[in-house]
Amino acid sequence: MDRIQWHIGRVLLAAFGAMVIFSGVVAEAADDPNNVIKYRRAVMSSIAAHITDIAAVVKGDVSFTGHVAAHARALHDMSLLIGDLFPAGTDVGVTRAKPEIWRQPEKFAAAIKTLQARSADLLAAAESGDMNAVGASLGPLGKACGGCHKPFRKPKKQ
Amino acid sequence: MDRIQWHIGRVLLAAFGAMVIFSGVVAEAADDPNNVIKYRRAVMSSIAAHITDIAAVVKGDVSFTGHVAAHARALHDMSLLIGDLFPAGTDVGVTRAKPEIWRQPEKFAAAIKTLQARSADLLAAAESGDMNAVGASLGPLGKACGGCHKPFRKPKKQ
Repeated sequence: MDRIQWHIGRVLLAAFGAMVIFSGVVAEAADDPNNVIKYRRAVMSSIAAHITDIAAVVKGDVSFTGHVAAHARALHDMSLLIGDLFPAGTDVGVTRAKPEIWRQPEKFAAAIKTLQARSADLLAAAESGDMNAVGASLGPLGKACGGCHKPFRKPKKQ
Repeated sequence: MDRIQWHIGRVLLAAFGAMVIFSGVVAEAADDPNNVIKYRRAVMSSIAAHITDIAAVVKGDVSFTGHVAAHARALHDMSLLIGDLFPAGTDVGVTRAKPEIWRQPEKFAAAIKTLQARSADLLAAAESGDMNAVGASLGPLGKACGGCHKPFRKPKKQ
């Protein structure tokens, strides 16, 4: 075997190795939909908790104005994860996700983007420390929540 | 009234004004304990949600390794708020807080500090992206949760 052949052999071997690794990635088993749903529900539940607390401060029920930025940051960070939380197949199980999520992916993606923009507004207001601005940002944020929940979430079972 | 008297008058007036403002701050009504308890429960519920999701990634139930830092940051930020969440009088109502919280304030404060240190460790691990390090930090974090919940939280009603 001359040097060129040896070199080609090495290159092919490397390419084959890369293919194995690559197909390994592609063939990686998708997450169990039930696990994704559980994870997703915990993300949503953390969002609900952070909003509950921000609203309690804005309404004056509690005086923890110094906490609002931390809640707003968590909320915005969570909004950035939502796009990953609805892989195909996660419409069955303990979930109120509607099939429309996968039928209208562009509309769904746009609704998520709107939430992310509104939670960024809330975060900016919270970081300014101006509770009136925080209060003013809650309405648009709530509308953005509804922008997904109305078209893409089934009503609670009676 | 000569200039000195006028000046003294102004100073006294300013001092009196400051006293009124100051006593206004001191006399500010404490938050309704029920509102504080609701707020506190939402903080705890967000912490539980973030830990649930971090654990799901570490166990391999879901593959969202890129989300762990956001959850860890929220968790640590929430741990920094806990010290504010147990004002006197918030041991009655929909709460499992034990009177020991107010009887042993130093022990309680130390337990919170430990949680904050362990959640800082988790955050550092999460930000490094090393899921083994994240996994290793969960045990000590869980122990820190128990460090408050065991001595300072009543068991669930049967």
